[in-house]
Amino acid sequence: MTRAIYAGTFDPLTNGHFDVIQRASKLFDEVFLAIGRNTKKQPMFPLAERFEMASEVVKGLDNVIVTTFEGLLVNYAKKMGVRVLVRGLRMYSDFEYEFQMALTNRKLAPDIESVFLMPNEDYSYVSSSTVRELINVRGDYSSFVPGSVKEHVENKYI
Amino acid sequence: MTRAIYAGTFDPLTNGHFDVIQRASKLFDEVFLAIGRNTKKQPMFPLAERFEMASEVVKGLDNVIVTTFEGLLVNYAKKMGVRVLVRGLRMYSDFEYEFQMALTNRKLAPDIESVFLMPNEDYSYVSSSTVRELINVRGDYSSFVPGSVKEHVENKYI
Amino acid sequence: MTRAIYAGTFDPLTNGHFDVIQRASKLFDEVFLAIGRNTKKQPMFPLAERFEMASEVVKGLDNVIVTTFEGLLVNYAKKMGVRVLVRGLRMYSDFEYEFQMALTNRKLAPDIESVFLMPNEDYSYVSSSTVRELINVRGDYSSFVPGSVKEHVENKYI
Amino acid sequence: MTRAIYAGTFDPLTNGHFDVIQRASKLFDEVFLAIGRNTKKQPMFPLAERFEMASEVVKGLDNVIVTTFEGLLVNYAKKMGVRVLVRGLRMYSDFEYEFQMALTNRKLAPDIESVFLMPNEDYSYVSSSTVRELINVRGDYSSFVPGSVKEHVENKYI
Amino acid sequence: MTRAIYAGTFDPLTNGHFDVIQRASKLFDEVFLAIGRNTKKQPMFPLAERFEMASEVVKGLDNVIVTTFEGLLVNYAKKMGVRVLVRGLRMYSDFEYEFQMALTNRKLAPDIESVFLMPNEDYSYVSSSTVRELINVRGDYSSFVPGSVKEHVENKYI
Amino acid sequence: MTRAIYAGTFDPLTNGHFDVIQRASKLFDEVFLAIGRNTKKQPMFPLAERFEMASEVVKGLDNVIVTTFEGLLVNYAKKMGVRVLVRGLRMYSDFEYEFQMALTNRKLAPDIESVFLMPNEDYSYVSSSTVRELINVRGDYSSFVPGSVKEHVENKYI
Repeated sequence: MTRAIYAGTFDPLTNGHFDVIQRASKLFDEVFLAIGRNTKKQPMFPLAERFEMASEVVKGLDNVIVTTFEGLLVNYAKKMGVRVLVRGLRMYSDFEYEFQMALTNRKLAPDIESVFLMPNEDYSYVSSSTVRELINVRGDYSSFVPGSVKEHVENKYI
Repeated sequence: MTRAIYAGTFDPLTNGHFDVIQRASKLFDEVFLAIGRNTKKQPMFPLAERFEMASEVVKGLDNVIVTTFEGLLVNYAKKMGVRVLVRGLRMYSDFEYEFQMALTNRKLAPDIESVFLMPNEDYSYVSSSTVRELINVRGDYSSFVPGSVKEHVENKYI
Repeated sequence: MTRAIYAGTFDPLTNGHFDVIQRASKLFDEVFLAIGRNTKKQPMFPLAERFEMASEVVKGLDNVIVTTFEGLLVNYAKKMGVRVLVRGLRMYSDFEYEFQMALTNRKLAPDIESVFLMPNEDYSYVSSSTVRELINVRGDYSSFVPGSVKEHVENKYI
Repeated sequence: MTRAIYAGTFDPLTNGHFDVIQRASKLFDEVFLAIGRNTKKQPMFPLAERFEMASEVVKGLDNVIVTTFEGLLVNYAKKMGVRVLVRGLRMYSDFEYEFQMALTNRKLAPDIESVFLMPNEDYSYVSSSTVRELINVRGDYSSFVPGSVKEHVENKYI
Repeated sequence: MTRAIYAGTFDPLTNGHFDVIQRASKLFDEVFLAIGRNTKKQPMFPLAERFEMASEVVKGLDNVIVTTFEGLLVNYAKKMGVRVLVRGLRMYSDFEYEFQMALTNRKLAPDIESVFLMPNEDYSYVSSSTVRELINVRGDYSSFVPGSVKEHVENKYI
Repeated sequence: MTRAIYAGTFDPLTNGHFDVIQRASKLFDEVFLAIGRNTKKQPMFPLAERFEMASEVVKGLDNVIVTTFEGLLVNYAKKMGVRVLVRGLRMYSDFEYEFQMALTNRKLAPDIESVFLMPNEDYSYVSSSTVRELINVRGDYSSFVPGSVKEHVENKYI
C-alpha cells in the first residue's frame, strides 16, 4: 500500500489544492491532507477552521484523511509510514523553490519520494494569498475556492 | 476612445516607470497614472509626495492624468471606464507574478485587458526598492530616476 | 488611428492565435493578420491555404485584415503605417525569445512598439507544431483550432 | 494495480533515465519503459540496440517491462491500461515544454495523469544528446551512462 | 594582482559558500570574504560569531581574508582596491536578482566586474535560510555546512 | 599566470562577444579567443574569414590571442594550459544550457573553471544568428557588430 502526504497551510484551501487532492487520491491508496501547525506568519484562519474547511471539501474522497503536523514534514512522513510527498506544480509558482525543498527533503529522508502533479490549467494561478487579499478587499473570490469553503468564510466573516 | 491605467506604488517613480508611461501615452488616448493608497508596507514617501513627484514627471504628457486609488484595481478601472491595464514587463522582474495577477484580474473583470510593454533595456533592472536602498546608504541614484524626482528627494531629505 | 500587426506563420492558425486576434481587434482600430511568406522551414500548409484558413476565421472581425509579407517585419510595418506589433505571450512559450526579438525590432525601428497580450489560459499551451503533429499521427486536434480550420484540414487531407 | 509508462527515445539510455526508472518502479506496480519507434530525427542507435541496452539496464527491476510504441503516446497508454505517464523533471530541462506536453496529453486523454519525478541532482544535467556528442568526439562519457550501456557502445562502435 | 570580494551575510556559512570560496581562491590572487554588518533582518548569529565561523572555515586557504563591511558594497570594494565581485550562481537561486544587482553595481562602479561561479551541483540547493530552519526544528543540517560550523552551532545552541 | 579561453563559433563576432572579450582581457593574464572548427551547421562565414574578423576586432587587446580548435573544448583547454573557460551570460540567453554545459565540462575536467561574465545590457540581446538573419534580408545590422566586422561583410557580400 502506498501512502502519500499532501502538506500545506491551506489558509484557505483553494480549487487548485482540491484539484491536486483529487488527482492524488486516484494515484495512491491513502492520502493524508496534512495541515501545518507551525506556520511562521499568523494565518488568516485558525487551525481549527482550516481543519474544518478541509474536512468538508474532501468528504467525498474516501481515501483522503485530514491531519495536522508540526516540525519537519519528513519526520512526520516517516512516523506515518508515508513514502510519497505530493506537490502541486502550479504553472506560475516558484518552480525553483519546489526543487530546492524536494532536494533538501531527499537529503534528510532518501526513502521518501517527492511527486509533482499538475493542477488543471484553470486553477494554475490561484493561490491562497490571492484569496485572502480578495477577502480583505471584499472582492469576489468565489471562482477560486470550493463552494463549502466560500460558505464557511461567509458565515464566519461577513 | 481607449483609456488605460498604469498603476503602482511609485515609491518613488523611476526612469523605468517613466519610460513605460511615455510608451503608453503614445498608444492610448488617455492614461491614468494611478498611485495605490493602500500599500501594505509603509512607503518611504507619503502619498502626497508620490503624487507630487509623479505629477512633475508627466507634466509634458498631455494625455496622462495622475490619480490615486484604493482597493481592487479592476474595480477602480471599471469605475473610471478603463479597458486597459498597462504593465511594464521588466526584463528581470517576476514574469510569473505578472501572469498570475493578470489572470486573476481577467477572472474578476473579463472586459479589461492587461497589456504588457517592454521598457528600454537601460531601465530594465531599475526598481523603486533599489532606489530607496541607495537613498538610505547615501549612494548615487541619479541615473535611476527622472531629474525632478531627484530634486524632490534632495530638497526633502538631505 | 492606431494600426497594429499580428504576424506569424499560422501553419495552421490555432485557437490561441484566434484568442489573441480577438483581443487585439478590441484594442486597436485596425489589425493586420500578416502571414509570413518566407518561412525557413517548409510549411505544412501552402501560403494560399494558410491565407484562406485565416480569412475564414476572422470573417466576423470587421477591423482585421489578412495580409502576407516577406522580409523584415518592421520594414513591412513601416510601409503599412503600423505603429504596434502585437505578440501573444503564451504562458509557456519562449519568453526570452520574445524579448530578444522585441529589442532587436526596437533597435531597427524605434517608433514601432511591441505590445504583449496574454491569451486565455485554456489556449496557452496550444501551438501550431502540436497541431501539425496531431494531424500527422491522426490524433484529435479539434479542441486546439477553430472549427473552420478543422473543416479545411479534413477536406484537404483526409 | 497502477500501471505507469516512462516513454522516450533512449538514444542511448542515460544514468538520469535509469535514476527515474528506479524511482518509478518503487512507486507503481508495473512500469513500461516504452521506446518510441517514430522519432523524427534519425537516431544514433537503431531501435533494436536501444531496446537491448534498455533491457540490460533494467534487468534487476522486476516490475519494469521494456516495450516500444508508435504514434500518440496517450493512445498507446490507453491500449495498455496505463493511468500514469512518468516524466523526469531534469532541473535544467525545458520545464515549459513538459508542461505544454502534459496539458496537451490531458486534453487528449483526461484519465491519464502525468507524474513528474526529480532525478538525483548528480544526473540532472545529463542528456542523451550530450552523450552522443561525447561519443562522436571520443570524449569520456562513462560517468553519464550505466555500465552496461557503455559496454554496448564500446563493442559496437570502437 | 587581482583582488576579489565574496560578500554575504553568511548566517551561517554553508557548504555552498565554502565551495565558491575555494573556487575563487584559485582564480584570484587575494579574496576578501566580506561579511555584511548592516543586514536588514536580525541575523540568527551575531556578527562576531559569523566572523569566527567564517575564519575557521577558510583557515586552510592562504589568500582568503575574512573582513566585515557596512553600506554600499561597491564603495567598500573601491576602498579596498578590489576589481572583482564574486557571486555564486546557485542553480535554483534567483538568477534575475543577481543580474539586477550586478547591473546596478556596474552603473555605480563601472570598473568593478561581477564574476559568477557555479558551485558544485551537490550544494546548489543549500541556503543559509534552510540551515536556520533546520536548526530551529532540530533537524539534521550536518550535510549542509562545514564541520567546524556545525561544531560551533552545537557548542553554542544545544 | 591565469590563462582563459573564450570559445565560440563567432559567425560573425558581435558587439556582445567583443564586450565579453574586453572584460575577460582585464581579468586574466592571457585570453584565447578560440574559434570552433567543427560546427555542426554550415557557418555563413568560412573559418578563415571568422579568424580574420576576430583578429581585426581584438587588435588593440594585447593579451588576447585568436586561435581555432576542434573536438572537445576541455581537451583543447588542457593542452593549452588553460584553467578558465569564460562564458558571456547573455541576459536572455539559455541560462539552463550554459549550466548544463558547465557541469558537463566540470565532470570531464574538474580543474577547469567556468566563469560567467555579464555583457553590457545594450548587447545582451544581440546574437550572431540575428545578425545573419539581418544580413540575409538586407536589414541594418550595424549597431550589432564592431565596425571592422561590418566593413568585412560589406566588402565580401555586397
